[in-house]
Amino acid sequence: MADLNVYEVLNRKRRGAPLEPREIETFIDRYTRGEIPDYQMSALLMGVAINGMTAEEMATLTQAMLRSGEQWHLRDQYDFIADKHSTGGVGDKVSLVLSPWVAACGVKIGMLSGRGLGHTGGTLDKLEAIPRFNARMSRQDFERAIADAGCVISTSTEGIAPADKKIYALRDVTGTVESLPLITASIMSKKLAMGASALILDVKTGSGAFMRKYQDSKALAQSLIAAAHGSGTRVEALITDMDRPLGIAAGNANEIIETIDCLKGRGPEDVMEVTRAQAVRLMVMSGRHDETSAGAALDDALTSGRALEQARKWIAAQDGDAAVVDDYSLLPQPTTTIEVKAPRSGFITAIDTYQAGMFTVDLGAGRKKADDQIDYAAGVMFDRRTGDEVKSGDVIARIQLGTGKRDADETRARFLAFVEFGDAPPEKRPLVHEHLT
Amino acid sequence: MADLNVYEVLNRKRRGAPLEPREIETFIDRYTRGEIPDYQMSALLMGVAINGMTAEEMATLTQAMLRSGEQWHLRDQYDFIADKHSTGGVGDKVSLVLSPWVAACGVKIGMLSGRGLGHTGGTLDKLEAIPRFNARMSRQDFERAIADAGCVISTSTEGIAPADKKIYALRDVTGTVESLPLITASIMSKKLAMGASALILDVKTGSGAFMRKYQDSKALAQSLIAAAHGSGTRVEALITDMDRPLGIAAGNANEIIETIDCLKGRGPEDVMEVTRAQAVRLMVMSGRHDETSAGAALDDALTSGRALEQARKWIAAQDGDAAVVDDYSLLPQPTTTIEVKAPRSGFITAIDTYQAGMFTVDLGAGRKKADDQIDYAAGVMFDRRTGDEVKSGDVIARIQLGTGKRDADETRARFLAFVEFGDAPPEKRPLVHEHLT
Repeated sequence: MADLNVYEVLNRKRRGAPLEPREIETFIDRYTRGEIPDYQMSALLMGVAINGMTAEEMATLTQAMLRSGEQWHLRDQYDFIADKHSTGGVGDKVSLVLSPWVAACGVKIGMLSGRGLGHTGGTLDKLEAIPRFNARMSRQDFERAIADAGCVISTSTEGIAPADKKIYALRDVTGTVESLPLITASIMSKKLAMGASALILDVKTGSGAFMRKYQDSKALAQSLIAAAHGSGTRVEALITDMDRPLGIAAGNANEIIETIDCLKGRGPEDVMEVTRAQAVRLMVMSGRHDETSAGAALDDALTSGRALEQARKWIAAQDGDAAVVDDYSLLPQPTTTIEVKAPRSGFITAIDTYQAGMFTVDLGAGRKKADDQIDYAAGVMFDRRTGDEVKSGDVIARIQLGTGKRDADETRARFLAFVEFGDAPPEKRPLVHEHLT
Repeated sequence: MADLNVYEVLNRKRRGAPLEPREIETFIDRYTRGEIPDYQMSALLMGVAINGMTAEEMATLTQAMLRSGEQWHLRDQYDFIADKHSTGGVGDKVSLVLSPWVAACGVKIGMLSGRGLGHTGGTLDKLEAIPRFNARMSRQDFERAIADAGCVISTSTEGIAPADKKIYALRDVTGTVESLPLITASIMSKKLAMGASALILDVKTGSGAFMRKYQDSKALAQSLIAAAHGSGTRVEALITDMDRPLGIAAGNANEIIETIDCLKGRGPEDVMEVTRAQAVRLMVMSGRHDETSAGAALDDALTSGRALEQARKWIAAQDGDAAVVDDYSLLPQPTTTIEVKAPRSGFITAIDTYQAGMFTVDLGAGRKKADDQIDYAAGVMFDRRTGDEVKSGDVIARIQLGTGKRDADETRARFLAFVEFGDAPPEKRPLVHEHLT
């Protein structure tokens, strides 16, 4: 590995020529060991950010970053173990509903997940709204939770993809965050570390998605799938809609309530449809189901109460208070609720979902900086949603405050600034746009 | 200056958007002071190398790098002071002939010059073939030489363009050497430090030039001119031919002899034509001549012996032994000369001038590494040149060895490997291709 010509590698990437697998692997390995300095890595990152990478280069980069740290290879221990990743959105509690639901159907599922940053919520933050919930599991505890409850969601441990940590910190100060191959390698090097048998990617598209434009979302989905090529984890993606918040609740405690409502069979239709589509794909990928039998098994798990029971086991397996399933008052409660009324009659034609996300973060439900504290009770209930007909004066949303104080009128005005009304309903958008394999 | 958003600057350059003058100035200023780390500068360099710069950005970058160090502003001290720069070639002794020649016509000229590296010779190395010649002048000595002899050529002092030194070292290890805006800023930030009234650029084109292709040479010439915009130094360029060695001698001592022969009126026609074209432009830029009167003045300086006399004064002003002008045996002498004979009758149709340059360097006349020692007596005499008709067995070149030893047959074979012969003469190429302002 010592014969890497770093200068020549950088020269070729500058000219837009592809790099050899061995060059990428050695570059990552030596950078992680501190043998290649930051100034050469940042030149490579800028070269990649501008000139791109082939699918093969990207897979090599991803898997080199993956191999920089721990690899759990869980697929070697179980007949089948599933994983799921979302590119993030507003009100996106799909992982929370999905995990106990498929576990109740006999499909083990584990996720090493991240915290929220920017306008999107974080799955771990939502779970931490549950009293005593432990989202920082050791590998041993992680596997015990799978044994006990069939599902587990925890934060990445320190040992996973150290190359990504080092590279991400450098991207963050060198203007190279927005780069499809670098985004792909960062996501997938961490996602592949658990070593699932199958991974379903929920790639969001629309005004509240990381990639707003459909073609960008699709390119990201294809890129994420390509990066896993040869890794041993089978990957599929669904492109799902994030042009409007998903479900009614956006926040942390309120999304836990909505999650449990879903598992009780009374969740919002959109959350159920998007979750079910992903659950079906994972069950089909397990090899034990076709789409029809998967759907029937999922229906049965819900109506029988087994999915809800699985949620109790899961929360308990991660040291959380499972009584929240039956008593929502055990969750952090809003101190104040500000009602927002429709200023006119007609239809809600659009909610700028990025703005809605930033508004929710601003209430304390998310982080603007990595070390911000979460206000678990804070959030928004979108009681009336895009496409709904409203009368002037109808309550369309409830803004929930936790520890923070807000001027009610100003808060209402800020909310209404990202909601559009019109005389006719907006065009319908599908919730699941496309399935990619 | 403290409010520069480095991240945003890098982001914009990644996307290919131009930077504001203030952003470039602050970036260079803070990098030179050590307040911006190498890893951010290398990201910028890669961004610029791939996405380029507008003419305005390039002028700003050049002049920001210039202002990082000493600026002599010599144009404020003299009615007119000229400067000249060549992009480098094989047998290029134009600066040596030009300086005393225009000085003899009353045009003061000074150059802060570099040493040879790669396949091209260095003007300072050639001058140092003269016993005791001092090519490392203080600013005070530099100005005294102008006063005494009307001309001076010296190495850049430490205080000039420290930003360029730091950036060049980083480009050298980040694959960003080949970049027109970065090459331009590097050359011109040093060239503009003297602060001439006018600068003539000799931009070479052809097999022995830094830019081989005509369109690349022209782009470089235009870029160098644009980078000086607003600097106070008027810049013109001539694109001249480097598809064959210039003159007969390539080396150091042998080029000093050829230079003096030129000043005695018996130099090779090609050297005279290329030098004269540049001398005329400088004299016209001085505002005291039109092309006709400049040509007449130059003829008179040569035939009267004043140009040669000026060379004696110049060498003496830089502590060199001016007796070399009349006694070439005072220069380092070759220990061995290997004659190369034509292997066939016909025409010399091409000499790969890059290969000829590398061959000359390899004899000891140049440097492969920055700290290599020069063998001043080593070089090549191209007695028969591209376009000449030869008979089999004619001596076409003499390879001069100094302290080094070479196997004669192997050396001849290596020489003949870059010379082509044919039955018809090659197409004629002009020596001066284009004049750009």
